[in-house]
Amino acid sequence: MFPERVELEDGLNLLLLQAHPTEAEEVPVAQADGRVLAEDIISKENIPPFDRSPYDGYALIAADTVHASQDTPVSLKVIEEVPAGYAPVHRLNPGQAIKILTGAPVPSGATAIVKYEDTNFTEKEVTIFSPCREGSNIVPLGEDVREGELVVEKGRLISPALVGLMAGLGYERVRVYRRLSAALLSTGDELVPIGETLQPGKIRNSSIYTIASYLERWGVKASMLGIEKDQAQRIAEKIREGLSDHDFIITTGGVSVGDYDMVLESLKILEAKILFWKVKMKPGMAFVGALWKGKFILALSGNPSAAAVSLFMLGKPLIQKMAGMKEYATEEIRVKMLDDFPKKSPSRRFLPGTLEIVDGEAWIRFARKQGNGMLNPMRDCEILGEIKAGSPPMTKGSIIRAYRFF
Amino acid sequence: MFPERVELEDGLNLLLLQAHPTEAEEVPVAQADGRVLAEDIISKENIPPFDRSPYDGYALIAADTVHASQDTPVSLKVIEEVPAGYAPVHRLNPGQAIKILTGAPVPSGATAIVKYEDTNFTEKEVTIFSPCREGSNIVPLGEDVREGELVVEKGRLISPALVGLMAGLGYERVRVYRRLSAALLSTGDELVPIGETLQPGKIRNSSIYTIASYLERWGVKASMLGIEKDQAQRIAEKIREGLSDHDFIITTGGVSVGDYDMVLESLKILEAKILFWKVKMKPGMAFVGALWKGKFILALSGNPSAAAVSLFMLGKPLIQKMAGMKEYATEEIRVKMLDDFPKKSPSRRFLPGTLEIVDGEAWIRFARKQGNGMLNPMRDCEILGEIKAGSPPMTKGSIIRAYRFF
Repeated sequence: MFPERVELEDGLNLLLLQAHPTEAEEVPVAQADGRVLAEDIISKENIPPFDRSPYDGYALIAADTVHASQDTPVSLKVIEEVPAGYAPVHRLNPGQAIKILTGAPVPSGATAIVKYEDTNFTEKEVTIFSPCREGSNIVPLGEDVREGELVVEKGRLISPALVGLMAGLGYERVRVYRRLSAALLSTGDELVPIGETLQPGKIRNSSIYTIASYLERWGVKASMLGIEKDQAQRIAEKIREGLSDHDFIITTGGVSVGDYDMVLESLKILEAKILFWKVKMKPGMAFVGALWKGKFILALSGNPSAAAVSLFMLGKPLIQKMAGMKEYATEEIRVKMLDDFPKKSPSRRFLPGTLEIVDGEAWIRFARKQGNGMLNPMRDCEILGEIKAGSPPMTKGSIIRAYRFF
Repeated sequence: MFPERVELEDGLNLLLLQAHPTEAEEVPVAQADGRVLAEDIISKENIPPFDRSPYDGYALIAADTVHASQDTPVSLKVIEEVPAGYAPVHRLNPGQAIKILTGAPVPSGATAIVKYEDTNFTEKEVTIFSPCREGSNIVPLGEDVREGELVVEKGRLISPALVGLMAGLGYERVRVYRRLSAALLSTGDELVPIGETLQPGKIRNSSIYTIASYLERWGVKASMLGIEKDQAQRIAEKIREGLSDHDFIITTGGVSVGDYDMVLESLKILEAKILFWKVKMKPGMAFVGALWKGKFILALSGNPSAAAVSLFMLGKPLIQKMAGMKEYATEEIRVKMLDDFPKKSPSRRFLPGTLEIVDGEAWIRFARKQGNGMLNPMRDCEILGEIKAGSPPMTKGSIIRAYRFF
């Protein structure tokens, strides 16, 4: 039928194998931050496009200053002034200087720039007191970006600095992958909408809001389909509905082994292709990855921490691949434990925590509250620390693997 | 007149002293991620609201199982089944058990839950093979959040996990500070719009796009006012215009000491209150902080790296305070240098880099390209490493202060 109780890495591979980048669209560069680039950005020009002055000062011929000293200063005739934004008119000849402002092009013939503060000057003459090195204070054409250079690769997540870089290269619009859309469905007879008073046995539909917020941060448009009861036929109907106008669907609840766990049942009704069921990790064991008409169904646990771990470790890389990113592996680091983990751990375990950097060392501080079904542990989570299957109790200072999300 | 060449910390204080949080508004909790909370969130109830079962299993009276063993199992009569979402009808008496599903309320009288997999069961009877500890597998009411608890403080930046937590507490809407708006003005005769062909001496208006993208990431709505020439009167007019319908304005260019640096001049025309001019750091020395009719004018350098450093070290904390955040200091860490910094550094210096965590150690990798006026150094910048004023050349492995931005 389908694999059960898979290793996390195997489950992730089963998902990624079926995932393809979505189509591309064009957006104004000013709106490109956080999007994924769908084209290579190759520079059509040099930045800077000319040799430029990094300071206010005087352009001169370095050879003229070889013998300059406090006792034998060299005076040069100022023949022109070049503000930023203007091209020099004259070519420099020996004995001459051109006043130049920050960002202005270096005049032809000039081989060095000397800063204002290192000279004495009048409107007509500038006096130099020490030799200038050839090329000093000249920013050469193309120092930042060279013509023809591959500046940013297709598949890169666009950062604020890349937005500026692409603008500087003359890209008014860039091709990016379109934003994915996700439908979100909560399942469970115990759930009621946020605004309702709680009857005995009921709790509020909450973790789906966390999931929606993460998706939005990752560039996905999230739509809430509300709550469905533990009835396979109705859940199947809602999944069909959600997938009709979204790229994928995430459900919560109903994926364990209990008599009322109806999501797996609903997938059978839909004749969805189930890729695997259950993952060897804690929390997050309960999970189904499935495909229906080429679209993913990610069925997460109803337990908030479990759902978050599945979302981070399986959902995020999958979403990143569909969103066009070339590198979609979760960033893996090794950190020191700031607390003991005093229990044996027969299962592989992920513990939410914060990354604390102290005097060149990187520590994980586990969330104060850790527990099944709790909302609190994830609240300040930046990284997930990993306790390997079969680990003995572990003490403060042990180095463990961890995964960064922010 | 006004302080010149101030220490970074002093400049920041001069700005912060004049900054006040903006007004509050209400938003649906589903849209609250990334906003700043303008009310204390105090729980009106317990989460979970009842003692709950974390597993599928049987609720029983622990005392009934004291003598249970493989050889002398204890059988209990199953009198009811409680799915998640429903309240138990019966009270447990000795010799009885109630089938209970994950998330369901623990029946009154029950003192422990035993998992399915640790029992033999039929519809009518469950058999236990070892003693259950009192309270085992019962998640007590209020374990996650206690009634009356201050769950989230006013002034906190809302994370995805907090969105879920507030939803779980019944908050359909929450009070947050309204989003700030900023006008962005580029100045400089050398600048042309992105789409234009470059005439000699001209460069494209680029770093303002990076600034706008950062502002948007920090929750600020950024509007571009375009490019203004180096003419004080026109710049003053644009600043007046920008401040008429935005909370603050950021300008680039024109804040150095050159003859064409017109922004300071424009502030004098406006009779703006100049808080300070120039900061003792590199890059980012050229900076003016000013107030006009109670609104901030942050005049950054035209140099992209300098503008970014000023924006991170001065602009971000200021924006965070105005946005209502209680903690607006930039996060300071200490990291090891992965590269040499082979120059003496008479000035205090900030070098962009990435944070690399390897085997429990935290390193800064300086950007490959570092240089005045370049767009490239900031492209993968996550942190700014600090070289103190008066430092000798520094070698790989030295521990330096750094500031985290992501």
